[in-house]
Amino acid sequence: MKFCSQCGAPVIRKVPPGDNLPRFVCEACQAIHYQNPKIVAGCIPEWNGSILLCRRAIEPRSGLWTFPAGFMEIGESAEQAALRETLEEAHADVEIASLYAVFSLPHISQVYMVFRGLMRSPDFKAGAESLEVQLFAPETIPWGLLAFPVIQETLARYVRDLEQGCFMLHVGSVMPPMR
Amino acid sequence: MKFCSQCGAPVIRKVPPGDNLPRFVCEACQAIHYQNPKIVAGCIPEWNGSILLCRRAIEPRSGLWTFPAGFMEIGESAEQAALRETLEEAHADVEIASLYAVFSLPHISQVYMVFRGLMRSPDFKAGAESLEVQLFAPETIPWGLLAFPVIQETLARYVRDLEQGCFMLHVGSVMPPMR
Repeated sequence: MKFCSQCGAPVIRKVPPGDNLPRFVCEACQAIHYQNPKIVAGCIPEWNGSILLCRRAIEPRSGLWTFPAGFMEIGESAEQAALRETLEEAHADVEIASLYAVFSLPHISQVYMVFRGLMRSPDFKAGAESLEVQLFAPETIPWGLLAFPVIQETLARYVRDLEQGCFMLHVGSVMPPMR
Repeated sequence: MKFCSQCGAPVIRKVPPGDNLPRFVCEACQAIHYQNPKIVAGCIPEWNGSILLCRRAIEPRSGLWTFPAGFMEIGESAEQAALRETLEEAHADVEIASLYAVFSLPHISQVYMVFRGLMRSPDFKAGAESLEVQLFAPETIPWGLLAFPVIQETLARYVRDLEQGCFMLHVGSVMPPMR
C-alpha cells in the first residue's frame, strides 16, 4: 500500500496513537488502513466414500489438485461461501454436514474454514477455474499432486476419519513446508 | 474506496474479466482491489464456572459488556489472536480448551471465532480498552447490557452448555436484530 484509498495522498507506516502495531496511515486525511487475514472457505464433497477434487486451471499451482475452496466474499456466510465455491469450481450440489477444519496459515495470513459436504447426486463438471473434476476413492487420491500443504493436511485427516467412520473438528495451524 | 492504493489514481467499480462480482479496479495500473470479511477472534474465559466479561471503554457500544474479542491481525493464528485479546482487554492468562463457536455475521462481513478459555489463575484487571473486568456466575450475567447480538447469542449457548456440562461446537450465522 502506497497511497490512501480515501483521498489519494501517500501513506506512511506508523503506530497510530492508542495502537501497538504499525499501520498504513494517511497524514493528509488521517485515515488508518487496517489489513487483516482473509478467510478461505472450502468444502470436501463426498459421494459414497469418495472425495471430489478439482484440478486447478488458474495460478498459483495450476494443474494441481484441490478440494473446492476460495476467498470468502463480502456479505456471505462461511457456509454460503463454501457452497458457492463448490458450485463454481465443480458444479456440485452438496448439503453441508458439519464444519470439518479450521486451520490458520499465519505466514500468509489466511484462515481455512473447511466444511464436510454430502453430494446430493453424483453430478459434477469442471467450472471455469478447473481443468477437470474427479471423484477419488481414498486409496486413489493423488497425494503427490495436491496444490497446497493445507489441502494435503486436511485431506490426510479426512481420509483417516473416513476410515474410522468418525468425523471430528480439526483446529490448528498449518506452517509452510521446510526447505 | 476512491483511489488506488498502489498508484494513487481514481478507481472505478466494475466486474473484472473472468470475475462475476464488481470490484474496485484501477484503470491506470490495472490493480484489482478485493475486499473480504474480517475475522473477530474471541475467548470466553472461565474460572470455577464463572465467566470473565469486560465493560467496553471504546466505541461502538462503550459501557456495555462483552467477552474479550477483536480483529485478528496479519501474521497470527486465530488462537494467538484470541489469547492476545484476552491479555490486552482483561489481563487474563487462559489455556485454550477448544474452539467453541464460529458465527458468520454476513450483514457486516465479520466471522466470529470464539474459543473456550480456562483461566490459569483468578487474576485479571482492565486493559486499555476496558472500563472494568469482572467474573460473573451464570445467573448474574448482565443480559440486558451486552454489547452485540453475537455476544448475547454466544453467551446464551455457553451458559446452557455449562449447565449441561457438555460443550459442543456452535456454527451458524447471527443476523441483525429485528427493528
